[in-house]
Amino acid sequence: MSERPGARRSGSTESISELTTERLSVYLRCLTWLESQGVRTVSSHQLARRYHLNSAQIRKDLANLGELGIRGVGYQVEVLKKHLVETLGLEQTRNIIIIGAGNLGTALADYRGFHQPGFSIVAMLDKDPERIGSRSRSGVPVISIERLEEVIQSQNVEIAIIAVPAESALEIYERVLDAGIRGVLNFAPAQLGRREGVKLRNVDLRINLEALSFFLKNEGLGARD
Amino acid sequence: MSERPGARRSGSTESISELTTERLSVYLRCLTWLESQGVRTVSSHQLARRYHLNSAQIRKDLANLGELGIRGVGYQVEVLKKHLVETLGLEQTRNIIIIGAGNLGTALADYRGFHQPGFSIVAMLDKDPERIGSRSRSGVPVISIERLEEVIQSQNVEIAIIAVPAESALEIYERVLDAGIRGVLNFAPAQLGRREGVKLRNVDLRINLEALSFFLKNEGLGARD
Repeated sequence: MSERPGARRSGSTESISELTTERLSVYLRCLTWLESQGVRTVSSHQLARRYHLNSAQIRKDLANLGELGIRGVGYQVEVLKKHLVETLGLEQTRNIIIIGAGNLGTALADYRGFHQPGFSIVAMLDKDPERIGSRSRSGVPVISIERLEEVIQSQNVEIAIIAVPAESALEIYERVLDAGIRGVLNFAPAQLGRREGVKLRNVDLRINLEALSFFLKNEGLGARD
Repeated sequence: MSERPGARRSGSTESISELTTERLSVYLRCLTWLESQGVRTVSSHQLARRYHLNSAQIRKDLANLGELGIRGVGYQVEVLKKHLVETLGLEQTRNIIIIGAGNLGTALADYRGFHQPGFSIVAMLDKDPERIGSRSRSGVPVISIERLEEVIQSQNVEIAIIAVPAESALEIYERVLDAGIRGVLNFAPAQLGRREGVKLRNVDLRINLEALSFFLKNEGLGARD
């Protein structure tokens, strides 16, 4: 969640903070949609108006990717989209495993956004013998947790999604790191330690409810969405 | 995702943007944890160091809530926490329904963060006769979607979570708004229109994978987490 001023150097992808990468993801969604509608150029003002964003912020974020805008014309949708795909490392396919094949793990295995270009969910891992051998609706197989390390190595897995109960999360986290995983998405309400060279993202869905609560409380006062 | 400079007026909760409410949620998590550890005062620098946040940003965000910090001492954990709870409207309990009792809906019904003070999930609604009458592990009942409007009114429901397939999302969205719901959390990959006086939050889990991908691509270049 932090943006550290000291971590920024203009024009260099190494200095793009986490908050910026989230905005780049949002821009990529917008451009993908515009491209599907046959739109060929778009200005930062048009992007801002259409998607309730800040046009100065858009120009600043995109300036970090190089000289992509043309004064008076804006950005070429196809060119900018290609740059965003490359910056986010989505031009290749990264293999993912999900640990935990309960309701959450299975929902994530079938989550449409995880099946678009850039990612491939190769397996769910679970300890429950009744689940092992089955498949999610989209075809992701459930494999025994005993084979965790073997699956990571043989399938060249880069990202692990932790969807196990809180009490098992730390043990699983350490096992996947020891097996060489460097990107972890954690849904369990557990405190997992940071480790050098590893990117851990904790998903906290409650923040969404708190934002709705804030709106409902302040609605009459003119809170914006 | 937008922070509009025009929407800010200092000291007034009506002007707190969506991005700020997310940070307030993060501060609330930190303070809740500090309180559980017996910590009574904390400075913005300590909060920043401990949770990888920006201390100037913390002071700016919290200044919007009033004069809460004491120079040289910092914030009183209990007092600040109480202010955050009130600002986010969490001092009361808001009733929630989940539409869709598939894997995702059921996972959300049992999601621990949704069962803490401030929120109560009163029901899941579904059209599948095999699901109707059952309960999630945490005890949330599945009710027929035909009773949607009745449940919203009789249980004073304020928030609806949409966890149905994309093709049903728009119809459900319009039904819950017509029934008086003003806060909607949407997990379906569908474009739902904005409506005056209604807060819609679309949850896009793929953004998390893209942030991991960015890190994996730029790891060798010194990308920060």
